Amino acid sequence: MAIESISYIIDTLFAIFAMTLIIFMVPGFAMLEAGLVRTKNVTAVLTINTLIYAVASMAFLLVGYSIAFGAFGSDSMSKWAAFLFQMAFVGKVVNIMSGGVSERAKVIPLTFFTVIMAAFIYPTVVNITWGSNFLQGTILELSMYDLAGSTVIHSTGGWALLAAILIIGARKGRYPKEGGIRVIPASNIPLVTLGALLLWIGWFGFNGGSVGSIASKENADAVALTIMNTNTAGLAGAIMVAIIMYIKYSKLDLTMILNGALGGLVAITAGPDLYNIYTPILIGSIGGALVVFAVSFFDKLKIDDPVGALSVHLVNGIWGTLAVGIFASNGESITLLGQIKGILIIGVFAFVVSFVVLYILNKIVPLRAHNDEEMQGLDVEECGLEAYPEFKRAF
Amino acid sequence: MAIESISYIIDTLFAIFAMTLIIFMVPGFAMLEAGLVRTKNVTAVLTINTLIYAVASMAFLLVGYSIAFGAFGSDSMSKWAAFLFQMAFVGKVVNIMSGGVSERAKVIPLTFFTVIMAAFIYPTVVNITWGSNFLQGTILELSMYDLAGSTVIHSTGGWALLAAILIIGARKGRYPKEGGIRVIPASNIPLVTLGALLLWIGWFGFNGGSVGSIASKENADAVALTIMNTNTAGLAGAIMVAIIMYIKYSKLDLTMILNGALGGLVAITAGPDLYNIYTPILIGSIGGALVVFAVSFFDKLKIDDPVGALSVHLVNGIWGTLAVGIFASNGESITLLGQIKGILIIGVFAFVVSFVVLYILNKIVPLRAHNDEEMQGLDVEECGLEAYPEFKRAF
Amino acid sequence: MAIESISYIIDTLFAIFAMTLIIFMVPGFAMLEAGLVRTKNVTAVLTINTLIYAVASMAFLLVGYSIAFGAFGSDSMSKWAAFLFQMAFVGKVVNIMSGGVSERAKVIPLTFFTVIMAAFIYPTVVNITWGSNFLQGTILELSMYDLAGSTVIHSTGGWALLAAILIIGARKGRYPKEGGIRVIPASNIPLVTLGALLLWIGWFGFNGGSVGSIASKENADAVALTIMNTNTAGLAGAIMVAIIMYIKYSKLDLTMILNGALGGLVAITAGPDLYNIYTPILIGSIGGALVVFAVSFFDKLKIDDPVGALSVHLVNGIWGTLAVGIFASNGESITLLGQIKGILIIGVFAFVVSFVVLYILNKIVPLRAHNDEEMQGLDVEECGLEAYPEFKRAF
Repeated sequence: MAIESISYIIDTLFAIFAMTLIIFMVPGFAMLEAGLVRTKNVTAVLTINTLIYAVASMAFLLVGYSIAFGAFGSDSMSKWAAFLFQMAFVGKVVNIMSGGVSERAKVIPLTFFTVIMAAFIYPTVVNITWGSNFLQGTILELSMYDLAGSTVIHSTGGWALLAAILIIGARKGRYPKEGGIRVIPASNIPLVTLGALLLWIGWFGFNGGSVGSIASKENADAVALTIMNTNTAGLAGAIMVAIIMYIKYSKLDLTMILNGALGGLVAITAGPDLYNIYTPILIGSIGGALVVFAVSFFDKLKIDDPVGALSVHLVNGIWGTLAVGIFASNGESITLLGQIKGILIIGVFAFVVSFVVLYILNKIVPLRAHNDEEMQGLDVEECGLEAYPEFKRAF
Repeated sequence: MAIESISYIIDTLFAIFAMTLIIFMVPGFAMLEAGLVRTKNVTAVLTINTLIYAVASMAFLLVGYSIAFGAFGSDSMSKWAAFLFQMAFVGKVVNIMSGGVSERAKVIPLTFFTVIMAAFIYPTVVNITWGSNFLQGTILELSMYDLAGSTVIHSTGGWALLAAILIIGARKGRYPKEGGIRVIPASNIPLVTLGALLLWIGWFGFNGGSVGSIASKENADAVALTIMNTNTAGLAGAIMVAIIMYIKYSKLDLTMILNGALGGLVAITAGPDLYNIYTPILIGSIGGALVVFAVSFFDKLKIDDPVGALSVHLVNGIWGTLAVGIFASNGESITLLGQIKGILIIGVFAFVVSFVVLYILNKIVPLRAHNDEEMQGLDVEECGLEAYPEFKRAF
Repeated sequence: MAIESISYIIDTLFAIFAMTLIIFMVPGFAMLEAGLVRTKNVTAVLTINTLIYAVASMAFLLVGYSIAFGAFGSDSMSKWAAFLFQMAFVGKVVNIMSGGVSERAKVIPLTFFTVIMAAFIYPTVVNITWGSNFLQGTILELSMYDLAGSTVIHSTGGWALLAAILIIGARKGRYPKEGGIRVIPASNIPLVTLGALLLWIGWFGFNGGSVGSIASKENADAVALTIMNTNTAGLAGAIMVAIIMYIKYSKLDLTMILNGALGGLVAITAGPDLYNIYTPILIGSIGGALVVFAVSFFDKLKIDDPVGALSVHLVNGIWGTLAVGIFASNGESITLLGQIKGILIIGVFAFVVSFVVLYILNKIVPLRAHNDEEMQGLDVEECGLEAYPEFKRAF
């Protein structure tokens, strides 16, 4: 083996390892969301999650990757490994979005939106941040630091979700005319837990792999620190929410605790390589607390998000990107202002384009299920399959 | 560290990584099959899946490995890693077979068959393809290219399954005397989805690891291309089935879509390293379509396969092996004729030997549960445990 | 890349890979235990498992790691990777303990105990075995060989569990006044199976990673042999229990078979690198058999352990540590006497300290749920969430 190949080989192996961990987020999102919705909508949720992975990855292979990065290529590792790592990200943007419109959005229009998101919208966001950057030299050129996508992935998905919720509205009965909020309990807590923990593990590949190379002492340290800080922020998010829940309600609401962990993980994602080992405790704790308060906030606005995706991904995507400017600004390449500019430009782009696309799509193929179908549950009409046909329903 | 050891070390690490991914197929098959059968047979399905892993791996350690490869040994990596990687394959052959006879085949005789398959039948197939090759120089010597086992693993398991179904027959009530087919719905769609996605991830190790080395630039490229093409074929299989389902029934049958993905994955397995990045789209799409048509075909023949294993593994094992001859023939080492010869010889061997062994075994320890037991479900009689004792059954 | 960095890079990657596998044990324990308890206690079990990971890891980061090892540091790999690998172990000790007191122990006091265990008790055990060793040169200095923690992890958790059970007692109705034992069936066998198989996979990282380096031919062989032997012991444990179950009851009790596999895995953990490839069959078989007999034994003593954690982890932790002295004694650094001394000193320390801490804690925050709460199930009172609210209960 030639000495100059070793780095190429190790980084290829590392990218494949990281990619594999990220693919565990496919069952991760699927199980999380399937556990959070009512049994009558579980198959539909699993179907859209499966199709998102299939369709988004295919669209990225055929169109999106070249929009983001230009031709297939990489000198530092196998170009196919470089593709696989990037491809593993794409579906996540739509997973974030599809979860928040579940129990009323239909599978087929969501699949069409997935194509557009994975072939055009997301690749454009990547182009101007991690990619070939067609904005270079213009006034809009970004200097935002976003290692693994607090803004690029999580906020982008979150803005698309916000656009979708504004268009299709809340689930029937969620906000009764007589006021208040009807609690709709999660149907399967073990699935929620399994899904959240698989996402957590996937994050090690997501953030660790985003360092881009492990093939030097410095990079090996950066990768390990990144994974350590990522994990620490998740720990802190979970603990903070547990404390808040116990103080406020004397109950340890596990779905909230898990969303708190995910909120911490989203928040650290912009700069896990930039902090010392204690700062992530602060960033993750704030991330967890933000989830708790954002969930109530969106409910007050009657923005109905059955899985808490806006609170986890949009709010913490913004927070995490700001946190880099607050805790890791170096006054030159990383500044709070540069972070804010990035949040705003990508936010406006992702929200406006998603809104327009979804609005037009909705005219052609209505996004929302008919009321009858929504009452009966989407599974039978959309998929012809009940998720748990043999279990007698308690209500 | 000596420079000449580096390749040995990296390939050992790579084989361990690949092996680990393949072991995720143990819960993968278990969850897939447990979700597809009725609740009354779930524990029995999980038990046979667990025992297959235990018994097949042990039989391969004690007997099968030396039949396949001769003595333990490898120069290019740790011989124990080389063993682990091969061991991870063995159980899969029987997992394929046990799924298709579930809901009526008993655990103990299946366990005995597992011993024979893992100690003798499968090792013989490996011997003449990837192993020490006792046919070398004879007229039966094979030139089939089958990187990761479209024929060696999937068809072999499929032929054994066909033999078993011919011997034990269909589930009671599946094909009523008055004609038609009674639909028996899957009992737990989240488990089906989880299982299929774990299998998908496992395939990265299965096919990627089968390249045998990542420790050169060329091999690193081959491994990454293999994993990329493997994934692409799975994507294409899922998408093709979704399109067919929607056109034929206006319903997105998720169990079919997932089997379509698996069909695409089986089909690519013979030559994922041989194609450019677009050919797998064609191979996987055809693989998915074949699943849809094969499922109907076998039902017309009253060959009852509750999990669709024949359609996924046997049909696509054959298709994938032919595809190498069609799309990657080089006129010398790889020819369509060589592929067909391999399919036929291994098909005849696997089917005939499995049939004879199962036929004799059936005389000694009946494969099939008594009618009463089948009606009641196999769980209580075979395992003394219901899978979900606290959930009231709807029927 | 400098040649002298290669070993550092590869070992960092290897430690991250191993750590990731171990983190799969978090959903592993969560699913196993959630499947083994009654539906009314499932959310509480999942909550404590989640909090254990969060709280134990955080306590180890802030306090425990320096007690065990002194300052953060490592020359042979990234110090952050070295930390991550050790951190992944900590929660396991409490997972073992929390499983055995489930269905009656409250989440909050268990969380407090988790802090103390992860910050002080476990780090002290590590200090005197794998760590900076404050006993060095004293009469208590240990010479026990325990590669990956048969004693350090599994027995320590087991002793803490025994202390806890002695303090809080059995579940209501488990040992009726009129004598006998009331069987309380596991509520979800697919979850049990999934959990056990994830633990099995995690063990490859646990034991393989404990070799500490893969970056030489010798170490690569040691890692691969370790993983192979680990797996073999699990296979043997499962097979042995299946045989015993079938002979004794003509039923293949899957929960027992899986616990048999786990028992074999615990037993091999002290010395998987020391044996030839056949000895693990013996060690694992005995491990499996011990689980079967220990489960009855503890029930006779009315020590109520709903998940069999004492039989799997305490009994086999001891057996595995003894096995090193029996099968791998070299008369110098490894002796049966040295192994026994280690088992005793750590056993006395872990049991006494855990007992005292739990006893005091119990006076401040009662460990045990009120009878009403226990009857109703812990989920609603502790977490405000039912695990499966839509499924009608059969009883």
